[in-house]
Amino acid sequence: MKQVRTLEIKQSVFADNDRQAELLRKELKQKGIFLLNLMSSPGSGKTTTLMRTIEALKDTVKIGVMEADIDSDVDARTICESGAKVIQLHTGGMCHLDAEMTRQGLEGLETNDVELAILENVGNLVCPAEFDTGASKNAMILSVPEGHDKPLKYPLMFTICDVVLINKIDVLPYFDFDLDKCRKNILMRNPKARIIPICAKTGEGIKEWADWLSEEIKSWRA
Amino acid sequence: MKQVRTLEIKQSVFADNDRQAELLRKELKQKGIFLLNLMSSPGSGKTTTLMRTIEALKDTVKIGVMEADIDSDVDARTICESGAKVIQLHTGGMCHLDAEMTRQGLEGLETNDVELAILENVGNLVCPAEFDTGASKNAMILSVPEGHDKPLKYPLMFTICDVVLINKIDVLPYFDFDLDKCRKNILMRNPKARIIPICAKTGEGIKEWADWLSEEIKSWRA
Repeated sequence: MKQVRTLEIKQSVFADNDRQAELLRKELKQKGIFLLNLMSSPGSGKTTTLMRTIEALKDTVKIGVMEADIDSDVDARTICESGAKVIQLHTGGMCHLDAEMTRQGLEGLETNDVELAILENVGNLVCPAEFDTGASKNAMILSVPEGHDKPLKYPLMFTICDVVLINKIDVLPYFDFDLDKCRKNILMRNPKARIIPICAKTGEGIKEWADWLSEEIKSWRA
Repeated sequence: MKQVRTLEIKQSVFADNDRQAELLRKELKQKGIFLLNLMSSPGSGKTTTLMRTIEALKDTVKIGVMEADIDSDVDARTICESGAKVIQLHTGGMCHLDAEMTRQGLEGLETNDVELAILENVGNLVCPAEFDTGASKNAMILSVPEGHDKPLKYPLMFTICDVVLINKIDVLPYFDFDLDKCRKNILMRNPKARIIPICAKTGEGIKEWADWLSEEIKSWRA
């Protein structure tokens, strides 16, 4: 198995994260690197979704992945198997990444040849929503077992995301999850949100998600 | 439906949370109030587990519940139906409760007649683990769909919990969840942790959990 590189992220020295995020976004635009910030609760299927995303897009775009975790490198080792460039970021107990921490991650990843950089943020529906990472687009995964009421309870996360993937739709029959109510709750927080039901395990819906992402990258480049 | 009271929690003024937590724990001991801090990811089944817990214990102990959420009062309204005393705490975007915030909640709850106060903390595996609330015991719920690797990725949460409830065991056949590996991962973080598999939906395992809690309250009072 390939060796996974791990980077210990340092706390940011900048007080004004919004400004740092705008600077990073501008720099990435100049370099032609599309940065996707992927967020969710713990265990909603971020890594499996990422594996499917890499599989769908790796022939058309060069992908680099930053796996942010409090501890462990299990996710980075999984992603490594996809053949994508990957680095494990350890946040040292911190519950989110801000723009400066994301910049450290991008430097660690060495993005010279990367066109799509994906940040798998810390599993958390609260704190990551409060910090602009400098991403081109924000995506989040809500999984069926978590319940359709989550947009009511974690409003900011759903407000700032451009796309919401509803994952684990294969287990819909076993949970009291109402897809229509879920859509309504998400759109109440963010009427512009694109909502895509998927099953990362079986691959269902992944084409729609990969197509959306490809289109976003294309129009961002234009 | 009964009116649910909501309290907007203010940010703490105390820098030394550990000291405030010890003070609160001492005061609660004097008043005979056992405080349980219940934590988990979003959507792991805290509220359903609480409903079952109240059902199992309400005839032997007077229960008061504090529902901490970023927004909404859906959980407090659910708990209200159990007949237990309940207050909704709004954290104003904050991702956890510390001892001073818990104290505000207990004052809002009016605990004169309460013997078991339960704090349903914000759904988050990171930040709540870092702040001692002054609780007599810490409990957490890990649900089957989240995966058995969570103790590897959120070490502090599993280290500080006295008991881990493994919820949603009714859906074990539909997920790649290894109960033995999960136990091993939890015990690696905390060899003293009591582990109880439950299904809050069907009631399975709730007796074992309620018995554990009753015993803890009894020995804490002795």
